[in-house]
Amino acid sequence: MNHHDTIVALATPSGAGAIAVIRISGQEAISIASEVFQSIHQKDITKQKSHTLHLGHIVDGNKILDQVLLSIFKGSNSYTGENTIEISCHGSTFIQQQIIQLLLRKGCRMAQAGEFTLRSFLNGKMDLSQAEAVADLISSDNEAAHQIAMNQMRGGFSNEIAKLREELLNFASLIELELDFAEEDVEFADRSQFNDLLNRIEFVLKRLIDSFAVGNVIKNGIPVAIVGEPNVGKSTLLNALLNEERAIVSDIAGTTRDTIEDELVIDGIGFRFIDTAGIRETKDLVESIGIQKTFEKIEQAQVVLYLVNGLQLTSNTQLDTFINEIGKIQNQYPQKALIIVVNKKDLISTDALTIINNRIDIFQAELSTVNSKLFTNFISAKNKEGIDDLKNQLLSFVNTGALRNNETIVTNTRHYDSLLKALEEIQKVKYGMQTNLPSDLMAIDIKQALYYFGEITGQVSNDELLGNIFANFCIGK
Amino acid sequence: MNHHDTIVALATPSGAGAIAVIRISGQEAISIASEVFQSIHQKDITKQKSHTLHLGHIVDGNKILDQVLLSIFKGSNSYTGENTIEISCHGSTFIQQQIIQLLLRKGCRMAQAGEFTLRSFLNGKMDLSQAEAVADLISSDNEAAHQIAMNQMRGGFSNEIAKLREELLNFASLIELELDFAEEDVEFADRSQFNDLLNRIEFVLKRLIDSFAVGNVIKNGIPVAIVGEPNVGKSTLLNALLNEERAIVSDIAGTTRDTIEDELVIDGIGFRFIDTAGIRETKDLVESIGIQKTFEKIEQAQVVLYLVNGLQLTSNTQLDTFINEIGKIQNQYPQKALIIVVNKKDLISTDALTIINNRIDIFQAELSTVNSKLFTNFISAKNKEGIDDLKNQLLSFVNTGALRNNETIVTNTRHYDSLLKALEEIQKVKYGMQTNLPSDLMAIDIKQALYYFGEITGQVSNDELLGNIFANFCIGK
Repeated sequence: MNHHDTIVALATPSGAGAIAVIRISGQEAISIASEVFQSIHQKDITKQKSHTLHLGHIVDGNKILDQVLLSIFKGSNSYTGENTIEISCHGSTFIQQQIIQLLLRKGCRMAQAGEFTLRSFLNGKMDLSQAEAVADLISSDNEAAHQIAMNQMRGGFSNEIAKLREELLNFASLIELELDFAEEDVEFADRSQFNDLLNRIEFVLKRLIDSFAVGNVIKNGIPVAIVGEPNVGKSTLLNALLNEERAIVSDIAGTTRDTIEDELVIDGIGFRFIDTAGIRETKDLVESIGIQKTFEKIEQAQVVLYLVNGLQLTSNTQLDTFINEIGKIQNQYPQKALIIVVNKKDLISTDALTIINNRIDIFQAELSTVNSKLFTNFISAKNKEGIDDLKNQLLSFVNTGALRNNETIVTNTRHYDSLLKALEEIQKVKYGMQTNLPSDLMAIDIKQALYYFGEITGQVSNDELLGNIFANFCIGK
Repeated sequence: MNHHDTIVALATPSGAGAIAVIRISGQEAISIASEVFQSIHQKDITKQKSHTLHLGHIVDGNKILDQVLLSIFKGSNSYTGENTIEISCHGSTFIQQQIIQLLLRKGCRMAQAGEFTLRSFLNGKMDLSQAEAVADLISSDNEAAHQIAMNQMRGGFSNEIAKLREELLNFASLIELELDFAEEDVEFADRSQFNDLLNRIEFVLKRLIDSFAVGNVIKNGIPVAIVGEPNVGKSTLLNALLNEERAIVSDIAGTTRDTIEDELVIDGIGFRFIDTAGIRETKDLVESIGIQKTFEKIEQAQVVLYLVNGLQLTSNTQLDTFINEIGKIQNQYPQKALIIVVNKKDLISTDALTIINNRIDIFQAELSTVNSKLFTNFISAKNKEGIDDLKNQLLSFVNTGALRNNETIVTNTRHYDSLLKALEEIQKVKYGMQTNLPSDLMAIDIKQALYYFGEITGQVSNDELLGNIFANFCIGK
């Protein structure tokens, strides 16, 4: 990939719309655009100021392709940090193609995925983690994911890493200096200060690493397995949660055909509801495969929502079966949050509700260890009763504290990996300090830690790494 | 619909892309935008020049929604002719929704389909036929349709109509003047000059009306029915036509399930190929229904392409059946262009080809009237032989002369209707002249003709008409 070419791509989604935006970036962007653009006021666009808009026509020889608005961004003032032109044309696919083809003939090259943002990184307009946040921002579909990406794009995460890196670099240079005077046995780097710094770095790294658990669920949505027989009111429940939140329900692409996932945003946090068939005992082979699948899905979930029709808990036998089932889930996954939701409470007498409740209490009391993550809810999905409590319980499993306090949250697997490696190196250095490891050996570990810090912000990078990161972008960004 | 509201809409296609553009138009556009936009250089956007771009953040209270580029267009210099703001934000659906919802809370109203262009018309930035061309331009998917829409948007059609209308208006006022002096029997309007004008108008109107036939096929594509048994090479033929043109093949939405249409652009003209089952005689009920359907599709087509596998024309019986079939089509639709295409010529001996050719010649000679629209082609779809000739024949059915000479072509049914009505009135006026109709009666017909001219350009319009026209636009234009 030649980074000096002038590149072009459609920046808006493909398909029909009122307008489309074609983006050109590179040293020749303005001169190439001037060859195909005729201002209606006969302006020479090579002589116009940055950040100005011009009405005119895109012409191919004598043929007028479209009336367009042309935006000029000069040099370091653009998104990419190099001359950039944006052509806002009419939204016909035909026109878009014609204009892009014309620009290719005039010397542009088609941009690759993420290449505009890659240039922004290469030209020092943003660091690597900021560039990565751009892709996250574009794909964010809920409040929390959006907020984290926005924070990262504005440099929140990089700043924290960069500050630590600088302090560490400072000490590293002092230690290197000691090596130069090795025979004189001097100590430029104050060991107790250095130890403090290492502890601080360790603390921050651990916090960032821990935040990945939150960050990851926020980015991808929290998986909730709904266990329940057909007709217990699963879709009514989802709609009840949904209607109050005016959120988006959709099948998630890429899930297997036999798993239906509904995505739902509650208080800005995404939840993925995974439908399962239930775990009722059976001698039927097909159904027992179903039960196996249910357990597999529970395995992937962070929260298990056990939904039962309260009308089917009125006899002792039914209650026994029910307690038996939640017992099985509790046994198999003692650490997973389990929410028991008894539906159709509007149709059940108060006495019957008390009996069910007592029975669950006894079950919970009999557990060898108290499960603090076991909750019971009586709801009427139809009448939307008890829905708010249920929502609050779901939210209680998300550590949104960090989010509310605007703390840095790591969502990117690549960053997570680098942080883990950096932590390992820092702990090696700490161990080296304790065991009076010679400075020259310690310096190697420090350098390695610096390397992993640099990997995050892009101060250390290579073509392969960059290729992998930007390949996940859309074309035109 | 209140035309003084400040309106907002997404102007780019919905879905994921690098960027999205949100458009705001109305008197309050700039002041509303200034409430939610924070320039990174602390600029007050209400004090910025028209046609400038500004980097900053969209903020909802303390919350940053996105980093955006904001374009400012002031008053009559904008597309709509009123203050306009365009916000170029990141292409996430979530962000688009958040920003639009924020703007709605700040006092904007969701724009209706085509409302930005409607405002452009209402504010005198374009006449009605130009506004209509904007929608045509956006939906144009081939060179010819694009060129016509572009020409119309730039005023080509309106100018022609407006000039005639002005001349007619001139005479109309002279005749009105005569009426004021009715008792004095004066003649301000030179009757022979007026007659010339009427003839000229009649000539132009007829030409425009005739152009509609061309315009309509160019806009919608020329329907070509392919008649042929399965396996004669229909898809290979379409691909051969296609590959050479690098055009778009797609199923057209809205066609019935049992009709497959392929759209293909040849030399900038769109053709719609309608697949049919063939018309081979059968006693099978299902197949005979198929034959009936084939005839229905031929009915809708402008050109019939009869495709036959040359290898199946090697015996006399096969040739008889073949001639019988083309005879049936020729009989039923003597006026439709019929192209006989004999495929797989690479597998047939020269002698056999001569026999087939002679037999078709005899068939043609026996026709009571010579069908100048009957053509024969020998091709090899697989080897792409004979494809160029076939393409030229297809193009010969389109009167592209007008297109090449940049003449005005009418593509809009509404314009066509108004032109027909105007022509009728002009002919009434001519007849009135010949029969010495009193000036006051003639003046009524002239006014009526002027009315229909005005309907095209929008000098005469009403809310219902405008509503109908702009409802066909997309939102955001």
